[in-house]
Amino acid sequence: MDADQLAISLSDTGSQSPARAVFFVSDSTGITAETLGSALLANFPGMPFHRHTIPFVDTREGAQAVARDVLRVSETGVQPVIFTTVKSADILAELHVPGAVVVDLLGGHLTELEVALGITRSEQLGQFHGVGDIERYFARMRAVEYAIEHDDGQSGRALDIADVIIIAPSRCGKTPTTMYLALQYGLLVANYPLTDDDFPTDDLPRTVNRYASKCFGLTTTPLRLSRVRHERRPNSVYSSLAQCTLELRRAEDLYRRNRVPFLNSSTKSVEEMSAVIMQSMRLRS
Amino acid sequence: MDADQLAISLSDTGSQSPARAVFFVSDSTGITAETLGSALLANFPGMPFHRHTIPFVDTREGAQAVARDVLRVSETGVQPVIFTTVKSADILAELHVPGAVVVDLLGGHLTELEVALGITRSEQLGQFHGVGDIERYFARMRAVEYAIEHDDGQSGRALDIADVIIIAPSRCGKTPTTMYLALQYGLLVANYPLTDDDFPTDDLPRTVNRYASKCFGLTTTPLRLSRVRHERRPNSVYSSLAQCTLELRRAEDLYRRNRVPFLNSSTKSVEEMSAVIMQSMRLRS
Repeated sequence: MDADQLAISLSDTGSQSPARAVFFVSDSTGITAETLGSALLANFPGMPFHRHTIPFVDTREGAQAVARDVLRVSETGVQPVIFTTVKSADILAELHVPGAVVVDLLGGHLTELEVALGITRSEQLGQFHGVGDIERYFARMRAVEYAIEHDDGQSGRALDIADVIIIAPSRCGKTPTTMYLALQYGLLVANYPLTDDDFPTDDLPRTVNRYASKCFGLTTTPLRLSRVRHERRPNSVYSSLAQCTLELRRAEDLYRRNRVPFLNSSTKSVEEMSAVIMQSMRLRS
Repeated sequence: MDADQLAISLSDTGSQSPARAVFFVSDSTGITAETLGSALLANFPGMPFHRHTIPFVDTREGAQAVARDVLRVSETGVQPVIFTTVKSADILAELHVPGAVVVDLLGGHLTELEVALGITRSEQLGQFHGVGDIERYFARMRAVEYAIEHDDGQSGRALDIADVIIIAPSRCGKTPTTMYLALQYGLLVANYPLTDDDFPTDDLPRTVNRYASKCFGLTTTPLRLSRVRHERRPNSVYSSLAQCTLELRRAEDLYRRNRVPFLNSSTKSVEEMSAVIMQSMRLRS
């Protein structure tokens, strides 16, 4: 991070109190530090935070560079917070900057686990993202390619091997949810749009009808759907509240008639939708 | 989880010592519990673990059901481990099963933060996955659609707005990395295959040549590439070690000549590649 970026980070909040600088410092990708750190910060919803992720801090020199940045923030008078997953004690020691709070996300829990498991942790860096795990890599790659091939009803091929087929009117969140399930869990997910041509009918669209037990439906609120569609085609029939209301009502009727489980995506993140779908379709191991 | 599944979880390890059952218990999606819990377990590489994720445990009754499953495992004599992000003290209390280890991933850190920030945590459930955050949702959706449209050089349209263009020979990991960057970080990522037609030449392929500064290259080892290609087309010229060696050497020459930063994907996970690319291309905020 250079001085300009830091200056921006100190000035770009519009709120009353100055944003508190938060550093996610990792000896690996930073994903764990970001995920857990963000989960913790979410419990303080009133506070503005300015986040910096610094991955691959795996030397003392690297940590000293981070410490210099943190110190500069600290000297402005607003106490910075460091969330870290760095495991080496030597490197970790460099992050203890005067005036900064250091939250060691792994250390304490590792000690708890050592006691519970009755063995000491390995000195190797934790390789928890499946490095070199070619089978997992194959599964993800296959799943992502399957998702791309089957996005938006593009292919009716090989639906028999799908783990789940997500059906919904256009813009209810099929594509990002499909991709998340593929990438994160290696599931084979197809998605199929419900269009005006599919209504009114009592049955699921012909392409997916024989796989009804694999189908999961999405719905949303008319207002939200209209807003999302407006983003793509402003002031069209497609994005009108009347059309959105009609399509959603018809879709929900279709789900109910065919006993397709469904959820309302309007207040849910892609992660939450994915978790609900996996649980509902018993796709969790 | 039913009895059959539990029985399987107790018997399906092939290793000497019995697999220890690990439960990731969350009042939300389970992502934080899984991510941090897995990062912790990775420090005990010799031990076999059997993992269960149980999301949406947000009532005492839900926690009691989990506790019954945990107790059954505990009674077999192998101490189960519960990693939990449940925040309600009442619900958390239900998880303290005799003979099980409970690792509270958030509680202690929240107390640390309360002290550091000088305020108490909110009683609301942490909503840290951008629920209702429609702008973030739009950004992810746009990014995923851009990635699908621009996968494998399918479109040369709108490359000027790409955040990064990943180039590599077939099967070096372009597609899953592209999708991860799009979904996780909302970045606009195109990818473009380097084929025999592109060699030998001094320049990048015409479609991407004017965007050289956005390009990032992938390479791998010939052996790994051959193995990955073999998975798609066994015993072909395409998957032969000679062809893989040739294509990778040419690709690396091309990257060097055009000052395209690149990395070797052979020992890296999709998450790690994404983190390196973001850092190298200065795409971190």
